[in-house]
Amino acid sequence: MKTRVGIAGYGNVARGVEKALQSSPDMELSAVFTRRDPAGVKINTAGVPVYPLADAAGFADKIDVMILCGGSAKDLPEQGPQLAELFNIVDSFDTHAKIPEYFESINNSVKNKTAIISAGWDPGLFSMMRALGEAVLPGGETYTFWGRGVSQGHSDALRRIKGVKNAIQYTVPREEAVAGVRGGANPHLTARQKHLRECYVVTEPGADRAGIEAEIKTMPDYFADYDVVVHFITEEKMRQEHSKMPHAGFVIRSGAKGENKQLMEFSLGLGSNPEFTASVLVAYARAAARLSAEGSFGAKTVFDVPLSYLSPKTGADLRRELL
Amino acid sequence: MKTRVGIAGYGNVARGVEKALQSSPDMELSAVFTRRDPAGVKINTAGVPVYPLADAAGFADKIDVMILCGGSAKDLPEQGPQLAELFNIVDSFDTHAKIPEYFESINNSVKNKTAIISAGWDPGLFSMMRALGEAVLPGGETYTFWGRGVSQGHSDALRRIKGVKNAIQYTVPREEAVAGVRGGANPHLTARQKHLRECYVVTEPGADRAGIEAEIKTMPDYFADYDVVVHFITEEKMRQEHSKMPHAGFVIRSGAKGENKQLMEFSLGLGSNPEFTASVLVAYARAAARLSAEGSFGAKTVFDVPLSYLSPKTGADLRRELL
Repeated sequence: MKTRVGIAGYGNVARGVEKALQSSPDMELSAVFTRRDPAGVKINTAGVPVYPLADAAGFADKIDVMILCGGSAKDLPEQGPQLAELFNIVDSFDTHAKIPEYFESINNSVKNKTAIISAGWDPGLFSMMRALGEAVLPGGETYTFWGRGVSQGHSDALRRIKGVKNAIQYTVPREEAVAGVRGGANPHLTARQKHLRECYVVTEPGADRAGIEAEIKTMPDYFADYDVVVHFITEEKMRQEHSKMPHAGFVIRSGAKGENKQLMEFSLGLGSNPEFTASVLVAYARAAARLSAEGSFGAKTVFDVPLSYLSPKTGADLRRELL
Repeated sequence: MKTRVGIAGYGNVARGVEKALQSSPDMELSAVFTRRDPAGVKINTAGVPVYPLADAAGFADKIDVMILCGGSAKDLPEQGPQLAELFNIVDSFDTHAKIPEYFESINNSVKNKTAIISAGWDPGLFSMMRALGEAVLPGGETYTFWGRGVSQGHSDALRRIKGVKNAIQYTVPREEAVAGVRGGANPHLTARQKHLRECYVVTEPGADRAGIEAEIKTMPDYFADYDVVVHFITEEKMRQEHSKMPHAGFVIRSGAKGENKQLMEFSLGLGSNPEFTASVLVAYARAAARLSAEGSFGAKTVFDVPLSYLSPKTGADLRRELL
């Protein structure tokens, strides 16, 4: 019997989940739940119904695992604890600073269900590599670089500036910093030394570009601590060259200084950031359904789930084919 | 209370285990066991006794986990099942084709103990990346490249040739193959296309070098299916330039063709191959002791152990610091 999957919240990640489920013959999409009017939500999977999220409780025994695709800022803190009471859930909650608090709120509401939170690529796969690196190379240093890729938060910050019509921000790892880390020097790096911030901005007619550029470069938290490059472009160019959602990044663990040089690196190069996050969510949805079936309940993270649970293969097959 | 570790078999990996334990304040080396005369085994850790391996049974309640550092060809198939009856064990059994059989023999002998086998870097960390890649990017292709680094098996094969006094073989990934894979082309690659084999050979006085080179290049299983480069060098040069044990390698998972390009890569660059294997063994020794304390018995592999068990940190600390 296939694992019956529900999606809560229909956006880019949800569309990625639909696509990833097509490559997972052991799972099937059973229903999509939305806060909007279901009649207005056109999904990509034929024959799958769309229901109001408020009616989800009625589906508790028809869905084996619910994949939460809402945003981390407003949707998940509310929906996560509610849905975790009713369903096994998986999400990619990604506000790093609030993960402990979110974990507790989920863990308090989950009863005889399994909830795996923050299962994307960072938090998610990158977190796993940070934990693995620290465990096998104690005494070393861990470095996480993001990019080249779009930061949604920084792009939003640009768009809030007066006179800005549209904007996108790419986070770019600085080559000299990366080279220093790969060389095994275990450097101490400031935010400015690690990443460059590249902004592409479309302005309103007659806007004060010099003023906008100055406002960007001095914006606290987002840009003031970084070297920032601002490009003013046309709306047409924005549409042509900046409508994809690529991302990339890498985690490097470097062994203790003065020892034999030991270097571990994990990197991702993603043509579609939301599709990759969705793929990770689907693999952890498989794990959540299995853990729940075994009675392993409660809130969990990628640190708590053995890799074998992510795979549709048996333990014997994994050992023979992949070990 | 510290986890009390025993070492069975004292060689390069065991010396690496001693070193790794110094960076693991939650663990301590309690004893070393050897098949040789203990009086002739000089270990690096002061104050730790060396006992005959045959006497190990008497230490069943003095050792929390035994790290098996013997060879995969002869030592582990015999010692593994015997020691798994008495102790929680960890090993890096690395004869890939025989892993299923070895797993069964361990699983049959282990009773109220935990045994984690094949926990090095390949099998081990690389296996984890193959499983993770397949789970999150189904429909794609996985590529494992080894090197540049010494292959012990191929070096031994060279040394068995008549007229060869000493020899070492480096496995080298072919750049054009790697570039094709990183480019997302999902190429089909033969053994010859993936790796080059580079041999450094010291000959006996008056040996037939042309004959030796021909014998190497036509040797079935080891060299016949590869492009092979043979360098004849002096014994002095061998000592000067080839006495380190570096290794490297990478696992690349590339998403399905025709989709958005998604690429995941894990790489290791190791100044000391045995020391890194030892570090992995020590992290999994921590896991074995914990799993056993929780009553999670039986034979296990890296696929079965959650990452949190490798770390001395609490779940809450891991979530706050690394997720």
